[in-house]
Amino acid sequence: MDAIEQRITEQGNKVRSLKSSKADKDVITAEVAILNTLKAELKALSLSDPDAAAAAAATPAGKPGKTDDKKGKGAFTLKNAKGTKDYTPQEMAVREKIFSTIIKVFKKHGGITIDTPVFELKEILSGKYGEDSKLIYDLEDQGGEKCSLRYDLTVPFARFLAMNGKEYQNIKRYHIAKVYRRDQPAMTKGRMREFYQCDFDVAGTYDAMIPDSEILRVLTECLTELELGDFTIKLNHRKILDGIFEVCGVPEDKIRTISSAVDKLDKLPWADVRKEMTEDKGLDPQAADLIGEYVQLKGGAELLERLYADAKLGANTRAKEGLDDMTLLFKYLDVLNVTRYISFDLSLARGLDYYTGLIYEAVLEGSAPPTLANGERARATVKKGTDELDENTVGVGSIAAGGRYDNLVGMFSGTNKKGQPNLVIPCVGISIGVERVFSILMQKQKKEEIKSNEVEVYVVGLGGVSVEERMKICTELWDAGIKAEFAYKLKPRTQNQWDVCDRDMIPFAVIVGGDEIEKGLIKIKDMRSKDESQKGGIEYPRTQMIAEIKSRLAQL
Amino acid sequence: MDAIEQRITEQGNKVRSLKSSKADKDVITAEVAILNTLKAELKALSLSDPDAAAAAAATPAGKPGKTDDKKGKGAFTLKNAKGTKDYTPQEMAVREKIFSTIIKVFKKHGGITIDTPVFELKEILSGKYGEDSKLIYDLEDQGGEKCSLRYDLTVPFARFLAMNGKEYQNIKRYHIAKVYRRDQPAMTKGRMREFYQCDFDVAGTYDAMIPDSEILRVLTECLTELELGDFTIKLNHRKILDGIFEVCGVPEDKIRTISSAVDKLDKLPWADVRKEMTEDKGLDPQAADLIGEYVQLKGGAELLERLYADAKLGANTRAKEGLDDMTLLFKYLDVLNVTRYISFDLSLARGLDYYTGLIYEAVLEGSAPPTLANGERARATVKKGTDELDENTVGVGSIAAGGRYDNLVGMFSGTNKKGQPNLVIPCVGISIGVERVFSILMQKQKKEEIKSNEVEVYVVGLGGVSVEERMKICTELWDAGIKAEFAYKLKPRTQNQWDVCDRDMIPFAVIVGGDEIEKGLIKIKDMRSKDESQKGGIEYPRTQMIAEIKSRLAQL
Repeated sequence: MDAIEQRITEQGNKVRSLKSSKADKDVITAEVAILNTLKAELKALSLSDPDAAAAAAATPAGKPGKTDDKKGKGAFTLKNAKGTKDYTPQEMAVREKIFSTIIKVFKKHGGITIDTPVFELKEILSGKYGEDSKLIYDLEDQGGEKCSLRYDLTVPFARFLAMNGKEYQNIKRYHIAKVYRRDQPAMTKGRMREFYQCDFDVAGTYDAMIPDSEILRVLTECLTELELGDFTIKLNHRKILDGIFEVCGVPEDKIRTISSAVDKLDKLPWADVRKEMTEDKGLDPQAADLIGEYVQLKGGAELLERLYADAKLGANTRAKEGLDDMTLLFKYLDVLNVTRYISFDLSLARGLDYYTGLIYEAVLEGSAPPTLANGERARATVKKGTDELDENTVGVGSIAAGGRYDNLVGMFSGTNKKGQPNLVIPCVGISIGVERVFSILMQKQKKEEIKSNEVEVYVVGLGGVSVEERMKICTELWDAGIKAEFAYKLKPRTQNQWDVCDRDMIPFAVIVGGDEIEKGLIKIKDMRSKDESQKGGIEYPRTQMIAEIKSRLAQL
Repeated sequence: MDAIEQRITEQGNKVRSLKSSKADKDVITAEVAILNTLKAELKALSLSDPDAAAAAAATPAGKPGKTDDKKGKGAFTLKNAKGTKDYTPQEMAVREKIFSTIIKVFKKHGGITIDTPVFELKEILSGKYGEDSKLIYDLEDQGGEKCSLRYDLTVPFARFLAMNGKEYQNIKRYHIAKVYRRDQPAMTKGRMREFYQCDFDVAGTYDAMIPDSEILRVLTECLTELELGDFTIKLNHRKILDGIFEVCGVPEDKIRTISSAVDKLDKLPWADVRKEMTEDKGLDPQAADLIGEYVQLKGGAELLERLYADAKLGANTRAKEGLDDMTLLFKYLDVLNVTRYISFDLSLARGLDYYTGLIYEAVLEGSAPPTLANGERARATVKKGTDELDENTVGVGSIAAGGRYDNLVGMFSGTNKKGQPNLVIPCVGISIGVERVFSILMQKQKKEEIKSNEVEVYVVGLGGVSVEERMKICTELWDAGIKAEFAYKLKPRTQNQWDVCDRDMIPFAVIVGGDEIEKGLIKIKDMRSKDESQKGGIEYPRTQMIAEIKSRLAQL
């Protein structure tokens, strides 16, 4: 760790000297990026500090640890596992708002939900995620089966269909649940090791592009309802991409790896991607140049004309199938009124192996790095007067992604004598990156302004009224279905009771005092009102309390 | 496995011969119980069949397995990990109903929610669960920290409070989430390796028994709202129990283990529990007999008088503290109007180590084994004409449980120089066993009668109307916030469209036909009505469609 700290100091000095010498902006940006990478490394190391971990392990189980003066007054070394976090009540309020917004849209389109276990037999997940398989969490072998934590919700869904295919030949299912990846975490950007996915998938044998187009409508409704600002949905088709690679002379066994390189075009300029293709992946430079002419194209439905008209591509069977799909899709998207969000983008390739047709990815306008005059993406810039990256210039990346995967269920169903799968259930779906949505929405509001409880009435006792009396009033309120609380003290201080009303943003107080009880009276105070005339609350006969509270709640 | 099958055959013959010889009923019952245990063992073995597991492991990853004729036509060996299951849309509908019912009650009492990760550092869980620690799932050490899946929601909550104690000195938190135990599963009884817990806990330093009594009110509201039938909440107090053990002469170091034996009194007769105390745990038989006199007592508040009056117990400091708590509690329970659900039961001891005060457990009347004339629980009986246990005579066990744990947060907070914890946050809480609730509610209804979708309108196309036309109508409905679906086919068969309405219990159909479209007309049909006069639907101008549907939905 000391070595990294040393390098951070040196790199910081370098950045400062470049700035004071008014060096080229791009040079400064690059050096700041190095500085930030070093800082992130240091942070990651601190989180998994071997000394701290060893100290914790040495503590006898279940007993408080020894005083650790470095960490402050006698604190036990307590933390979340790397890449995971707790959600506070305020954060949960925001998260539940996101989920309920999305679920409402899913249900509007006929979505029904299933649940699958957090862990699956290891074999179920094997061979589904390409290189990323190394990020799968395995459970320890404690005698029994080998299991792994789920990596996404798509593979367990396909496994569910393969097991229950007779009953579920077709289903519109949504699933909101946690998935697990042993990735390098970037917590503030919403990249964690434990995170939620919100998936909506349509399974079943249908006519071309009809469910696909509805999925895109579902996505636009979700992103609109979440009020995240402008967004673009980039579309492409695996068969068009495969056709391009074919006509450009990419050997069949290199298609997936060249496709991965193309997928980086949203982060790297073409020159870098070309270099990866030719130098790292050994592609003929001529083929790379031909690919470059296609994959930098983007536009709307009019791009289809151009590709059909392309002598080589228009004659390629695979590409032709993809183009026909896209033609149909654009027609449906017009009817569904979502064309304005769409960009047909030939650089979109998507990493996962299992896609077989249409693929898509949604990007927020506000969160994408700005585009420069030369058409390239701007690199991240530095905040004025600091060494830190301006987060506004860094893209959060895609906010949702998905596509068509017609063969995944068949991979689980076994094959017949001819080697064909026993069960074919074509699927198309979308996964919304809710953690990114969450981090964007959390930044928009002050934490202390988020109401995390739903309490409607606080029962305030004045002048030594007994706890049983306050409890009795609460019981009446609860019996009437009203959300109510009282102080858990025999003699609560008056100010403390008002403070709770304010802190928890409780709209009404029912006030009980010694004298009034005997007269059968209570007072009701609107805690949000600045009206001085109701300062001490307005008096009502106790028998009218429920009716009065209900009528006030109805007006909220 | 063959050995067990052999034993099952033999045991089955034995039971049949006892029955035909009209042997004593208790003898038959005991022999049937042995038979059922053997059957359960066989089932558990089949689930973790080593041959099947080996076959699955031998299959190349990601490729369909070889045809396995035993399992049917070319099926791949696909299954859930042991003790876990998928939830179908119908099951999810029931589960979500349960959750929303419980959450409504929690929120009514001011509950707010937090979330903690599914896995914790292994050290956090160590030493919290006594003997049951062997049931904790560990993650494989893939380089990094040692982690385990959470075993309950209470320990992570205490860890959260210890980490965030400054901000959360007091909180009413609920948490509904999955927990994990490597237990022997009994799926039909709702005992699984992955299962949900629904917890509500009040943390904070308050006056005695006030939050404790509200927790019991919360529990009665939940169980009442879930409509599970009559229930009893058994109460006891750790300090009373400890006082009893003290005055009966149990050595301090045997108190927890003798307490565990007492806890079995709901399943075993006193004679068996006494035997465990004296023979297995080496307790002086005289002490055991003294304990027996106390722990078989049960009743209401009047039992307190008797215990106060008891010469030995009334003079014991610990017991006295517990009795004072219970006196206060019964007073509050009266105000909260829940006394009628309560049974003060000195045999209740609860397994977990961390309870320090009041403990409780809710049992459903209908699901508990009947009580015999001699006051003992009846043993499970056999279904007429079969060898199988009558499930109605077997208790599902407790449906909810909890208690006060004042020292758990302190176990995480470290200690000062005097050895006292740095942070003390007393807690009391309840955990509802929703899987048992779920299995009871699922048995009450027919699966096919559960509506799992929320679709309000199905757009039916007649007479070759185009898919774009149906899509356009759906878009109008969606824009108006109406939940709607259409068939994903270019030319759907008419009957298939009606069938979907019936299967999915969709209340209304909007019917579009070729002729009507040109005239600007649609038809609306109430799918639940048997009224023949609206058989083909009632005609409306298309411009009135939304208003008419909305007005009909408002009347649902």
